[in-house]
Amino acid sequence: MNTENFGSSERLVTAAYVRQGAQGRRGHELLLRALLEQGKCPEDGWDESTIELFLHELAIMDSNNFLGNCGVGEREGRVASGLVARRHYRLIHGIGRSGDISAVQPKAAGSSLLNKLTNSVVLDIIKQAGVRTVTNCFVVPMATGMSLTLCFLTLRHKRPKAKYIIWPRIDQKSCFKSMITAGFEPVVIENVLEGDELRTDTEAVEAKVKALGAENILCVHSTTSCFAPREMFSYLSSELKKLADLHNERLLDTPHNPISLAMSLKNLDENNDVAVTQLGSMLFTRQVSGARVVPRGSVQTVNNYTFKGFMSHANDYSCAYLNAASAIGIKKQDVDIFLKRLDKCLKASRKGKEKSVNEICTSNTGTEQCEDQKIQT
Amino acid sequence: MNTENFGSSERLVTAAYVRQGAQGRRGHELLLRALLEQGKCPEDGWDESTIELFLHELAIMDSNNFLGNCGVGEREGRVASGLVARRHYRLIHGIGRSGDISAVQPKAAGSSLLNKLTNSVVLDIIKQAGVRTVTNCFVVPMATGMSLTLCFLTLRHKRPKAKYIIWPRIDQKSCFKSMITAGFEPVVIENVLEGDELRTDTEAVEAKVKALGAENILCVHSTTSCFAPREMFSYLSSELKKLADLHNERLLDTPHNPISLAMSLKNLDENNDVAVTQLGSMLFTRQVSGARVVPRGSVQTVNNYTFKGFMSHANDYSCAYLNAASAIGIKKQDVDIFLKRLDKCLKASRKGKEKSVNEICTSNTGTEQCEDQKIQT
Amino acid sequence: MNTENFGSSERLVTAAYVRQGAQGRRGHELLLRALLEQGKCPEDGWDESTIELFLHELAIMDSNNFLGNCGVGEREGRVASGLVARRHYRLIHGIGRSGDISAVQPKAAGSSLLNKLTNSVVLDIIKQAGVRTVTNCFVVPMATGMSLTLCFLTLRHKRPKAKYIIWPRIDQKSCFKSMITAGFEPVVIENVLEGDELRTDTEAVEAKVKALGAENILCVHSTTSCFAPREMFSYLSSELKKLADLHNERLLDTPHNPISLAMSLKNLDENNDVAVTQLGSMLFTRQVSGARVVPRGSVQTVNNYTFKGFMSHANDYSCAYLNAASAIGIKKQDVDIFLKRLDKCLKASRKGKEKSVNEICTSNTGTEQCEDQKIQT
Amino acid sequence: MNTENFGSSERLVTAAYVRQGAQGRRGHELLLRALLEQGKCPEDGWDESTIELFLHELAIMDSNNFLGNCGVGEREGRVASGLVARRHYRLIHGIGRSGDISAVQPKAAGSSLLNKLTNSVVLDIIKQAGVRTVTNCFVVPMATGMSLTLCFLTLRHKRPKAKYIIWPRIDQKSCFKSMITAGFEPVVIENVLEGDELRTDTEAVEAKVKALGAENILCVHSTTSCFAPREMFSYLSSELKKLADLHNERLLDTPHNPISLAMSLKNLDENNDVAVTQLGSMLFTRQVSGARVVPRGSVQTVNNYTFKGFMSHANDYSCAYLNAASAIGIKKQDVDIFLKRLDKCLKASRKGKEKSVNEICTSNTGTEQCEDQKIQT
Repeated sequence: MNTENFGSSERLVTAAYVRQGAQGRRGHELLLRALLEQGKCPEDGWDESTIELFLHELAIMDSNNFLGNCGVGEREGRVASGLVARRHYRLIHGIGRSGDISAVQPKAAGSSLLNKLTNSVVLDIIKQAGVRTVTNCFVVPMATGMSLTLCFLTLRHKRPKAKYIIWPRIDQKSCFKSMITAGFEPVVIENVLEGDELRTDTEAVEAKVKALGAENILCVHSTTSCFAPREMFSYLSSELKKLADLHNERLLDTPHNPISLAMSLKNLDENNDVAVTQLGSMLFTRQVSGARVVPRGSVQTVNNYTFKGFMSHANDYSCAYLNAASAIGIKKQDVDIFLKRLDKCLKASRKGKEKSVNEICTSNTGTEQCEDQKIQT
Repeated sequence: MNTENFGSSERLVTAAYVRQGAQGRRGHELLLRALLEQGKCPEDGWDESTIELFLHELAIMDSNNFLGNCGVGEREGRVASGLVARRHYRLIHGIGRSGDISAVQPKAAGSSLLNKLTNSVVLDIIKQAGVRTVTNCFVVPMATGMSLTLCFLTLRHKRPKAKYIIWPRIDQKSCFKSMITAGFEPVVIENVLEGDELRTDTEAVEAKVKALGAENILCVHSTTSCFAPREMFSYLSSELKKLADLHNERLLDTPHNPISLAMSLKNLDENNDVAVTQLGSMLFTRQVSGARVVPRGSVQTVNNYTFKGFMSHANDYSCAYLNAASAIGIKKQDVDIFLKRLDKCLKASRKGKEKSVNEICTSNTGTEQCEDQKIQT
Repeated sequence: MNTENFGSSERLVTAAYVRQGAQGRRGHELLLRALLEQGKCPEDGWDESTIELFLHELAIMDSNNFLGNCGVGEREGRVASGLVARRHYRLIHGIGRSGDISAVQPKAAGSSLLNKLTNSVVLDIIKQAGVRTVTNCFVVPMATGMSLTLCFLTLRHKRPKAKYIIWPRIDQKSCFKSMITAGFEPVVIENVLEGDELRTDTEAVEAKVKALGAENILCVHSTTSCFAPREMFSYLSSELKKLADLHNERLLDTPHNPISLAMSLKNLDENNDVAVTQLGSMLFTRQVSGARVVPRGSVQTVNNYTFKGFMSHANDYSCAYLNAASAIGIKKQDVDIFLKRLDKCLKASRKGKEKSVNEICTSNTGTEQCEDQKIQT
Repeated sequence: MNTENFGSSERLVTAAYVRQGAQGRRGHELLLRALLEQGKCPEDGWDESTIELFLHELAIMDSNNFLGNCGVGEREGRVASGLVARRHYRLIHGIGRSGDISAVQPKAAGSSLLNKLTNSVVLDIIKQAGVRTVTNCFVVPMATGMSLTLCFLTLRHKRPKAKYIIWPRIDQKSCFKSMITAGFEPVVIENVLEGDELRTDTEAVEAKVKALGAENILCVHSTTSCFAPREMFSYLSSELKKLADLHNERLLDTPHNPISLAMSLKNLDENNDVAVTQLGSMLFTRQVSGARVVPRGSVQTVNNYTFKGFMSHANDYSCAYLNAASAIGIKKQDVDIFLKRLDKCLKASRKGKEKSVNEICTSNTGTEQCEDQKIQT
């Protein structure tokens, strides 16, 4: 409420209380101000109350929320369903109507402001994550394969002479499919693991840029890793190390990777050939998803390009290992459950107690679990 | 956003657009101001965007939403579940902690403001609805039997010498149960129908107050009828009249009742004794709820008090009739569906095509409908 | 709830009522079934209750909502903020991770289902809208310039030999910018207005395909027009015709355009050269947005391609005219307000009462309105 | 979705994935079943997804959400505003219409079910909290003064011969006001602190029942304390003990109180008379709310009844002390901030660095803080 309305409120409720309330409002406004002036990611995350207030404030700056507005154009910011309006916080006007995503929209001051701030905050986060050179560097906003393809196609158009793409990690076929689809030359990525240690992304990128010539290169940075929660990573790291010790394995030394951790599966590998693959199945049927088990020397072919050591971080790593990540949204509880289940699986695996996949599939109770395994394998 | 924040926004988005946005905000603030200053129900209903803005503004005036607030009391305004917080718009502090519902709460300026305004607006609506004398008149906020009992008990305590309660309409057993439970003397209500015409609530109340002595009377006003949508009432009225004409019935003349309409069921009544009761069942199984069919001379006993012509508006009305109301939230579509189904039922009833309830109940397809009928009867 | 849970409920609440409730549930399930089996846009729009139930049902089919699920991958379907989870109905897993938007996702059965159904329903709507040949025809999901550019780039890649794009209407610079950006040959669009009549989109498209050779053509269909509300269009049409008669103008005969209407501005044009342009400003300052005033013979150049009669529907139409559309989400109230304001503007314009834009801008009260006009012009 | 709909889904999305999804649904259904069958508070709190699913399932069991329902009664379960419908999860039908809060509603199977389960779960929680004798014991659902008054009035009516009310703790004037208002005899509460130790509520209650005669007594139990989060209480307890040690104070020994803790303020009290009162102000201006500072020998009069040691737990405790509670919704972060601020205040207080309230009020920067203090004092 503005000053006049706080004034009017004082006739209804004790003035001192209203002034306290106005003071409370000012607290939220100060957070908004800091964001507007600095354009940086706040140190302490805003609570939902502040976020919603801000979104509401932005929405009423858009013309579709002006009282008395009457729109008769073909592409007015208007929705038929209240459900749709609410889930977009009534920010109905699109951004980028002129074809330029960063262009300000006359009818949508609030949406335009949100767009500017989002770009500014994401850039801040990338810088904080240690990416120093952002020239020639594009941010891929959502990391699904579909959006990657669209982005690479756009990049292809903007930089028709570029041949190579530098991509931080070899982890998803879809990344490479998308690049190749967009017409970029292959073998663009190299493992950044040297000996037993990963170089920082930045170091690896800079070495590459020098070697291949800056004019030939597009350096694309996926934003996912920037949002990794540091505290949870430390926790996962120390707990996974304890578990590795218990099982005579070790945590691979990857000091510059802020998301993923790898634990060796040396003993499992040596004792039993299929045990490594089976561990993956065991984890999956126990509802642990995303924990990748990487056997030695896997080879993967994508659109005719062969990647040695695919999904691993070296062309030929000396033993099988297991990957786990502490990505955005992970909670202490998730880490605890993961470790408990992993521990059980490792024990069962060593004792040979786990039946083979086929055996389970013919048993009575495991019907649904077998579906799962077939899906995965 | 306050002036400073709009200023900061002008560095990010064209100043002219930001100023438009600020102007748009002012539109909503003006509506808030009118409410705060006049305390009256707005002529044109606010849209959801304005309502939500206002609720959000009020919420951040409550201390539980102050940034930096740290509450360690036993009864802090605090919730464990985000779900609960959201459905209360983060207005977590209760009103009426001191036992006085209208007392302002030091920690909750926003909630207090909302409480004051609600009372003021409801009073305004009651006045608009034609209730001139609000002395000795209490508003019953929610019309469920449970809340009625609590309210009557409170009234019992506040006015220990009152004997009678005047209640606008005889329509729900629960109203009378509640009154009797609270220790009020019975026969407190009289039918306000004279001849073929209902007197206004106010006229009837005033006559009663004079006859019984003001000091003995509590005049309770249910707020439900105040919120009847006038346009829909006119529509229901004219359409029901057309239907009545088609079936050689008539709309009863009840000019002062702004919610309920009554259509005679004379022909049905004369031709067939059970037809009237059966019409109710037919409507119910066709998912028409709330349409009451009133046979001639029904008698109802509640806690030893006998009400002649219960649920009708006269002790002994000359024919059976059907009641339909245009209450809060009704839509044109509801009226249309009701009339279509009523028309069908009347036709079927006259042609004797409708099987008796028992017949239906033994038939195959009607299983669920029979459950319904048993529920109702 | 499933059958067992309804059974358990019968121990707590009268069995007959529970069965009624289960019956009520079945009503919603039947709607879901019809959609799943037919994949068509429902005749009667679902109410919010059914939509939310369906979204909720889909969400709990996705693995991120499985109870007991523990995800430790880098790209798990997981969110840090409850706010984000809620606005996506907890459908957190992306679609199209493999780079193929239509690929089913193993971890996200619900999201995959939603995706399949959405495609199917949109296709149904396009067919209903009269587009018979959907071969070589791509649907542009959101009509902002940004998404158009991404889509055209994708099309460019999929159909490298296509030269032309057929686009229903010349109405936004951004459409052409996007096409040209994506490397398509220009002059791809032609006005479909012949004499005073618009051909149907389909007729025009078919003529074009024949003339230029099917292999050279991409026929892109914007979905916006498919969602035009027919009832409101009729209402706008008949009311605008009445207004046109009053002002000695006429409604242009455009029988095949289901969204936009055009009213001649002959008298205004003849009497006063600047009056036509000024009418646009007048409407804008009265918060009528989207009503385009088209002067005679406007020429527009986009990326070196010159469009005669840009934003009109003919290269050289005989008089100025005004466009108004009845697009998605428009309400009776919007139409009424628009006509009232247009009537006032036309009257004022004819009487010369409206000051010129410059005059207003120097006056005291009009400050904000001038900003508006400068924005527009 | 029901079995048929899952079947239909298998034609659109790989059957195995759909079956996984159906399996995921079953997980939620099993939680619902456990609640329906046992009527007990779940060990592990449900996540929002399950809660919302359940509320949605209940809502569609109510007749106002039946598709095709057409209500024309005066008190149909119907709302004019979507905002209101949503915040009640579309459970629009009231409970307790007949005047009996526990009566099942024919038109509202879902609401009735929710009501039954709520009562059952709350009773379970009270039992878990150690209240063994629930005969003659009523649960006060919301602990605001207003609801207390309504509840006591109801109890007054139900148990006209009862004279006394046993109430666990003397902590809010409003409790006593409400009791006295409802006509109960005073001096109903006694301090349960013996020596330095609190007896359990149950022990104290049982002793009282014996002394005064069961027929004269109403034992009312506030539900607030049942919901105290145990883990946070332990944390607050251990951390407050550390702080007390640092300041040469001690944590009072109150082993049976699961919410509130008390720390002695002996040194503060001895050194400086006004220091104790001032500590309260200091905490309040630092946005610590709810931390009560209890001076020695406070006396309070409510409606002519004098309570010695009001708000303390003994008639005359040997030193001043400070109360802090770990009530519902408190988080680790709240405890940490509280202790940090308390530490600072205690240090400042001992060093005499804190200016007197009046001094602050005349200083420049403290204007708003002074308002706060005036409110509080």
